[in-house]
Amino acid sequence: MADHNIYQDPLVGRYTDRAFQELFSNNYKFTTWRRCWIALAEAQHELGLSQVTKAMVAEMRNALDEPIDYDLAARKEKELRHDVLAHVHEFGTHCPTAKAIIHAGATSMYVCDNTELLQMREALRLLRPQIIDTMENLRAFAHEHRGLVTLGYTHYQAGQPTTIGKRATLYLHDLMIGLRLLDQAEGEIQARGAKGTTGTQASYFELFDGDFEKVKELDSLVSKKLGFETAFPVTGQTYPRMLDHIIVSALGGIAIAAHKFAVDLRLMSNLKLMDEPFAKGQKGSSAMAYKKNPMRSERMTGLCRKLLGLQAEVAQTAANQWLERTLDDSAIRRMYLPQAFLLTNAILKLYQNITNGMVVYPAQIRRHLEMELPFMATEAIIMEAVKQGGDRQEVHGRVKEHSDTAGKRVKLKGLDNDLLGRIAGDKMIPVSQTFLDGILNEPERFAGPAALQTEEFLTKHVAPVLEQYADLIGTADATINV
Amino acid sequence: MADHNIYQDPLVGRYTDRAFQELFSNNYKFTTWRRCWIALAEAQHELGLSQVTKAMVAEMRNALDEPIDYDLAARKEKELRHDVLAHVHEFGTHCPTAKAIIHAGATSMYVCDNTELLQMREALRLLRPQIIDTMENLRAFAHEHRGLVTLGYTHYQAGQPTTIGKRATLYLHDLMIGLRLLDQAEGEIQARGAKGTTGTQASYFELFDGDFEKVKELDSLVSKKLGFETAFPVTGQTYPRMLDHIIVSALGGIAIAAHKFAVDLRLMSNLKLMDEPFAKGQKGSSAMAYKKNPMRSERMTGLCRKLLGLQAEVAQTAANQWLERTLDDSAIRRMYLPQAFLLTNAILKLYQNITNGMVVYPAQIRRHLEMELPFMATEAIIMEAVKQGGDRQEVHGRVKEHSDTAGKRVKLKGLDNDLLGRIAGDKMIPVSQTFLDGILNEPERFAGPAALQTEEFLTKHVAPVLEQYADLIGTADATINV
Amino acid sequence: MADHNIYQDPLVGRYTDRAFQELFSNNYKFTTWRRCWIALAEAQHELGLSQVTKAMVAEMRNALDEPIDYDLAARKEKELRHDVLAHVHEFGTHCPTAKAIIHAGATSMYVCDNTELLQMREALRLLRPQIIDTMENLRAFAHEHRGLVTLGYTHYQAGQPTTIGKRATLYLHDLMIGLRLLDQAEGEIQARGAKGTTGTQASYFELFDGDFEKVKELDSLVSKKLGFETAFPVTGQTYPRMLDHIIVSALGGIAIAAHKFAVDLRLMSNLKLMDEPFAKGQKGSSAMAYKKNPMRSERMTGLCRKLLGLQAEVAQTAANQWLERTLDDSAIRRMYLPQAFLLTNAILKLYQNITNGMVVYPAQIRRHLEMELPFMATEAIIMEAVKQGGDRQEVHGRVKEHSDTAGKRVKLKGLDNDLLGRIAGDKMIPVSQTFLDGILNEPERFAGPAALQTEEFLTKHVAPVLEQYADLIGTADATINV
Amino acid sequence: MADHNIYQDPLVGRYTDRAFQELFSNNYKFTTWRRCWIALAEAQHELGLSQVTKAMVAEMRNALDEPIDYDLAARKEKELRHDVLAHVHEFGTHCPTAKAIIHAGATSMYVCDNTELLQMREALRLLRPQIIDTMENLRAFAHEHRGLVTLGYTHYQAGQPTTIGKRATLYLHDLMIGLRLLDQAEGEIQARGAKGTTGTQASYFELFDGDFEKVKELDSLVSKKLGFETAFPVTGQTYPRMLDHIIVSALGGIAIAAHKFAVDLRLMSNLKLMDEPFAKGQKGSSAMAYKKNPMRSERMTGLCRKLLGLQAEVAQTAANQWLERTLDDSAIRRMYLPQAFLLTNAILKLYQNITNGMVVYPAQIRRHLEMELPFMATEAIIMEAVKQGGDRQEVHGRVKEHSDTAGKRVKLKGLDNDLLGRIAGDKMIPVSQTFLDGILNEPERFAGPAALQTEEFLTKHVAPVLEQYADLIGTADATINV
Repeated sequence: MADHNIYQDPLVGRYTDRAFQELFSNNYKFTTWRRCWIALAEAQHELGLSQVTKAMVAEMRNALDEPIDYDLAARKEKELRHDVLAHVHEFGTHCPTAKAIIHAGATSMYVCDNTELLQMREALRLLRPQIIDTMENLRAFAHEHRGLVTLGYTHYQAGQPTTIGKRATLYLHDLMIGLRLLDQAEGEIQARGAKGTTGTQASYFELFDGDFEKVKELDSLVSKKLGFETAFPVTGQTYPRMLDHIIVSALGGIAIAAHKFAVDLRLMSNLKLMDEPFAKGQKGSSAMAYKKNPMRSERMTGLCRKLLGLQAEVAQTAANQWLERTLDDSAIRRMYLPQAFLLTNAILKLYQNITNGMVVYPAQIRRHLEMELPFMATEAIIMEAVKQGGDRQEVHGRVKEHSDTAGKRVKLKGLDNDLLGRIAGDKMIPVSQTFLDGILNEPERFAGPAALQTEEFLTKHVAPVLEQYADLIGTADATINV
Repeated sequence: MADHNIYQDPLVGRYTDRAFQELFSNNYKFTTWRRCWIALAEAQHELGLSQVTKAMVAEMRNALDEPIDYDLAARKEKELRHDVLAHVHEFGTHCPTAKAIIHAGATSMYVCDNTELLQMREALRLLRPQIIDTMENLRAFAHEHRGLVTLGYTHYQAGQPTTIGKRATLYLHDLMIGLRLLDQAEGEIQARGAKGTTGTQASYFELFDGDFEKVKELDSLVSKKLGFETAFPVTGQTYPRMLDHIIVSALGGIAIAAHKFAVDLRLMSNLKLMDEPFAKGQKGSSAMAYKKNPMRSERMTGLCRKLLGLQAEVAQTAANQWLERTLDDSAIRRMYLPQAFLLTNAILKLYQNITNGMVVYPAQIRRHLEMELPFMATEAIIMEAVKQGGDRQEVHGRVKEHSDTAGKRVKLKGLDNDLLGRIAGDKMIPVSQTFLDGILNEPERFAGPAALQTEEFLTKHVAPVLEQYADLIGTADATINV
Repeated sequence: MADHNIYQDPLVGRYTDRAFQELFSNNYKFTTWRRCWIALAEAQHELGLSQVTKAMVAEMRNALDEPIDYDLAARKEKELRHDVLAHVHEFGTHCPTAKAIIHAGATSMYVCDNTELLQMREALRLLRPQIIDTMENLRAFAHEHRGLVTLGYTHYQAGQPTTIGKRATLYLHDLMIGLRLLDQAEGEIQARGAKGTTGTQASYFELFDGDFEKVKELDSLVSKKLGFETAFPVTGQTYPRMLDHIIVSALGGIAIAAHKFAVDLRLMSNLKLMDEPFAKGQKGSSAMAYKKNPMRSERMTGLCRKLLGLQAEVAQTAANQWLERTLDDSAIRRMYLPQAFLLTNAILKLYQNITNGMVVYPAQIRRHLEMELPFMATEAIIMEAVKQGGDRQEVHGRVKEHSDTAGKRVKLKGLDNDLLGRIAGDKMIPVSQTFLDGILNEPERFAGPAALQTEEFLTKHVAPVLEQYADLIGTADATINV
Repeated sequence: MADHNIYQDPLVGRYTDRAFQELFSNNYKFTTWRRCWIALAEAQHELGLSQVTKAMVAEMRNALDEPIDYDLAARKEKELRHDVLAHVHEFGTHCPTAKAIIHAGATSMYVCDNTELLQMREALRLLRPQIIDTMENLRAFAHEHRGLVTLGYTHYQAGQPTTIGKRATLYLHDLMIGLRLLDQAEGEIQARGAKGTTGTQASYFELFDGDFEKVKELDSLVSKKLGFETAFPVTGQTYPRMLDHIIVSALGGIAIAAHKFAVDLRLMSNLKLMDEPFAKGQKGSSAMAYKKNPMRSERMTGLCRKLLGLQAEVAQTAANQWLERTLDDSAIRRMYLPQAFLLTNAILKLYQNITNGMVVYPAQIRRHLEMELPFMATEAIIMEAVKQGGDRQEVHGRVKEHSDTAGKRVKLKGLDNDLLGRIAGDKMIPVSQTFLDGILNEPERFAGPAALQTEEFLTKHVAPVLEQYADLIGTADATINV
């Protein structure tokens, strides 16, 4: 239940999936700390450290899921002013035998950093089904509308026609690049492993009596036990914060892709070309029941902006780490890491939700085309007229004149484009009515191979990715609280 | 109680004052919406709108503090998909008579924007005692240490000496500029008033049968009733979002001031010149009990960076508002407004806390001076030697040589600076031991009028401000949870 | 002439006024350094420093405009690796007598900082005529079109009508706030004065034999001679870099105002409501001669984004100054200060240019109104029908049904809005054709007092500012290249 | 020669390599446009387009290096207000036969975008030798100082010792990650190819009579001729601007790595642990000849900050592209693309330059160690004393007491750390002088396997990369203009 007396972060209360909220919860964090301690004890035992016995390890394993006594931890933290030691103590109450060897040789960042690396990797993986589902939605949409000709827009002015499906491939393409960025970012995640307080592994070196091979094995073994393939080869006290930059820049790629889509949709909604899906029972307003404010796209726009805004603070944090470690990253990372993933989750929920039911208005699309297509067809008309025996010079001049008149009529008088009618009525321009009708009736000729491009792209580029992740399709929840 | 199952914003859980958390709570918000509705009804009644009766107004006033039925509001919002109308309904249940006229003629932004403007103004005012207390701390500190000579640092290399007090005036100066920025920002806050859905006041114009004077009076009257002196003269649906930019840039000024201070303190702590205060019982580490990590300054640094990071998203939001209004500002403002103030509150708590008990180490300050002062004194030594009959050319050459040797001794051999000893032992440089002793014993001569500057600044510039706000001193809570 | 072999900054080559390019040139900078040296010598002489004679001061004054020997300065800088001393030497070649006392007691920042402060103040002043002219353009435009009713847009969807003039007041209002921010920023500029290498004025204190009053007078006197009313009361080696933050945030206010305007214009240009002015002979494209890409607004958008992007680096620079000074601000400030002002100049040139000849298309504006107004009028129609004896329940139901049908016709069939025709043809809704005609013929009734608001705002708020700066109107050059 | 009358971008005048300045010059750009036209004509000819003859292609090839007539192009641009057509015309004057088919079927972005993609790829490749050289410098440095024990610093307070070489591996590690980011970014660069004005390839489709296979081949063929392996599968008018985000984020990784290094060096320079190399004849100041301001690191810091500042504007630009294309990216990309690469070039020049001659001060490093090591050794001392028969309780208490006393002596009295002496003099603590001497004489025992880690990292991780790029070592110019 929300506490109405104090500020509540809307990212948690309104926009995100439970799975992401839990991933950055205390329970997830402190349970993962316990996993880190167990991995360390196991590895130390396996590498022959006599003070860590099999029984201790077993006891710790059994205690993993014991409820965390937060009151005890809080009291201990107040006493020691050290949260990690407080939770070492708390875990120790569940493992009386192992108590003394929990966290042996480790520094705080052993649990903190490894836990955050696991959280980030898990978060990246949780985002993938959302991206895949959105891609599948866009794929189906692009396929369905691959041949639906619409005005292209450059400078947000009428340009050479394209198709609704082809336009959607641009969103898909951006999103696929974003997916690749996430993959690359995940590829940069390694364990921080067991490196010691300044990264020298001195305490472990001492535990293993100066046996560097064992120290390296320990680092590798705990990392593997925690689910990492490798550990960073060198660190100071922490893993390199540049990783945060890489991850948040990759999430920024998703934000860019989603922002462009959302703004486009808001523009197209104004033009009545397309709309967001409508929630059951949602109404625009009483008098204009059909009116549909693109509120999800608007929200997406704002959330993307916020996510992009995080990049600067992340990069600055990484750039300003002093020597083996400073702590000016602590408070800010407690915020930016969860925020970055919660925002991406929220954005992708909206993206998935919207693409799941976008409404297209072919008649309005056609109407816009008819307003502009005649102007774009003048070149073809002149060529046809010349073919039919017209004098090029003469025809060109008259077409130009009609074109100007028709253009002014539209803009200055607010009337429809009557260029084709004017040309049809001009005997000096020998083109048939059939030819002129063809311009508006076969607009696809102006869109070139847009439909073919769409199919080609979907088949050659999108399908392989969707096949690769076929098991993820349909697994993400696109429900949103409007 | 924190919910350990889901993410908790540390700004709320750890770093801020209850007053700020409450200011951005649901209760504060929805109660202020009620105040807006009451102000509107009062004004409409006073301006002669017959359908708004005295009894209705009284009923609404009486209902102001009735507990908000959040369940009812939530159910209604689900039905209407409109949070303002849901709360109109909820308030209506407490005012059966007035029910129909609540929010009459108003659009959502009437309550939303006016409420946020009140929150921002209140937040700015809540910050002021924190700044004043910090200024008072710095003033007392600067005064106390106005004559304590220390090396100045340019390029983070030893430079001409200054005093610890003089250095502190720089922090004070920055903070005073920041205070002025907040004052100017507060000066830009006006009511959004009663402007209607696209800012035309059309609905009020209709309510008042086309009487523009009454429409203007209504705008002015509700604004005054809500505690604003004036309303923005023109708006679209919302107040100009550029105001958010102004406010967050001003808060950014505080962040800059605080960040510079915090980084300086971290540097000086390394040099053992100064330390943060120490919490009772706080320990550095077992073996190095005297070691004191500047954790508050480090936290301040990170929080300031986060606050500065908000500027970009705020400016982008303001720059991207389309025509009479777009809603891409809604989700992001739900976050950046509270975050900006909560961060500033957290930063100033730390700033106040630290300046309340900074520890100064005169002996270490002196030690650093002694290492560098001889080099800085060479000019004075040469002048004295010449006065005592030395040959300028000769003296200059020998001093230079000793200086080089002593410099290398320090850097290459890690030894103390023995330049004065070398000079004392050189018969060709006729300066007395008394003169040489004076260099280290009277370092203030190298700091020029730094102490006088400090007093001048405190008296002429700082005191008037502190007097102006004398009643605020001591009213802010500097307790922090380490 | 541009050098085609190497990169040329387009800010200089394409977008800005000569006056701004010159303000940040070497000549302006080094000539101002000379002015600083003259002011210092004058003040020292006036305050009785015997080594600075009247003749020296006169000699220096006479040499002010001597051409700067850049080759000599470059050779000297290579030798000394110190640009200020190199130019002291260069100036000295023009003042053989004064040579030895140039820069006496001063540190580099004496000339560098005071010069930059003068540049910034001058730059702010150069921007003002541009803002005033743009305001005058917008004022005239708003006045002219105060009664031209147009659809309002919220969510970029049709909303309650406003007027073209009223909408323009929003741009004016933003710009006026921006102007006020510049004024406040200029108000924060004070001289860095004569403060010495670590801000202690130690060298001057020595020059004046420990007379602090004279030291203060010197600081004040040089500042006044350079045209400042006051000097910063305390500094380290440099003036507080927070000032840069204040100035660039204020310029950011201009960027926000201009960006919102430019994006709005791009949207309205798509809707064919308004256009940028057209350069003589500029053509959209051959086939679509009437087509006008809003290229200036697009450019404005990008330049504003760039300017807003500077804020982060400026704030970070200010926040990261260490102790009495670090030099990590030097290279970055060589770029961000000129860039910030050059960008603002470029943006305002475009803003002034565009507002100087915006084209409005009343017929298209009307066309859009007609598409949406009937829906907005349903409430009024129902009221009229009831007044004419219709049954409220019955009428409401039928109007709703017609409204839905008409809405679907538009969106799904791409046809015009025929709601009024449907209502006229429905005998159960007793409203006259005259009444229905009135809806489209008197759209102003739906815009409330928008025209009155516009006049009120122009008269009460804009006129006083324009009067205050009446002499600036028409003094800025709005010509743009390309 | 610099023009002293107008602003000169210091990035060009001061900080960068000629190769980068040329890469973003007019000559490079317009010559590459010609290459694009030639590639197009060749491909069209090869694909059987009869109007493009072998002779035309040959003529164009021969004209590639003809001097560009900028005056002619400028006149033509003024006439047509279209830079691409102006240069089509200019190139046409060198190819009278081919004139009519230059740019056939293409839109401006065909030359603009493909050229910029080539520039970015070339720029990325030009950066690589700089990174490799810097890595080689750091490798040699880390190797040389792998065993030089120094205090580690956490919280910028003394922490467990590490080695100078081990610390340098952290910089290397960051830089290697940065290199990988550049590789990944380069991997995302594909040709924009031949896509047409809204990306539909309609004009080419028409040229090839509706043969989609030929259209695709054309796209592929021109891309290959220009040196790309592939073309983006789909585009609007431009290549996806998200690529700019990817590239500038990758450059941001370099900035982060370099910024951390530069700040660390500034801190270590203060501590007299290490220094930048010194230019011949460079002097700190007259009195303190040995003083060395870390001006290059300071400059690096500022330039990195500027580069990181670009990320926001790049991401915003990509996020705000509307539909098939808007032009609000044009002016800003003319600046941010060159700036991003010029800044990175400048940063890496400094990084390479500094790492090429860093000075290390072992004696000062030792001095700092001696101040802190005794505190860190107390645990070991107690263990030894117990081994020698001491009573653990008793020994622990006395050591603690001595430790406190010694700590206070340092901080409060500014004296050296005499803890070991106190312990040696305490008969109740049975440790030998030899043992105590060992603490300071064998500090490596406190640094754990830091030296081994260093070697391991250099051998296993760095060497393979340097081998891969062995031919690049020594090819970048590290000369800087101080």
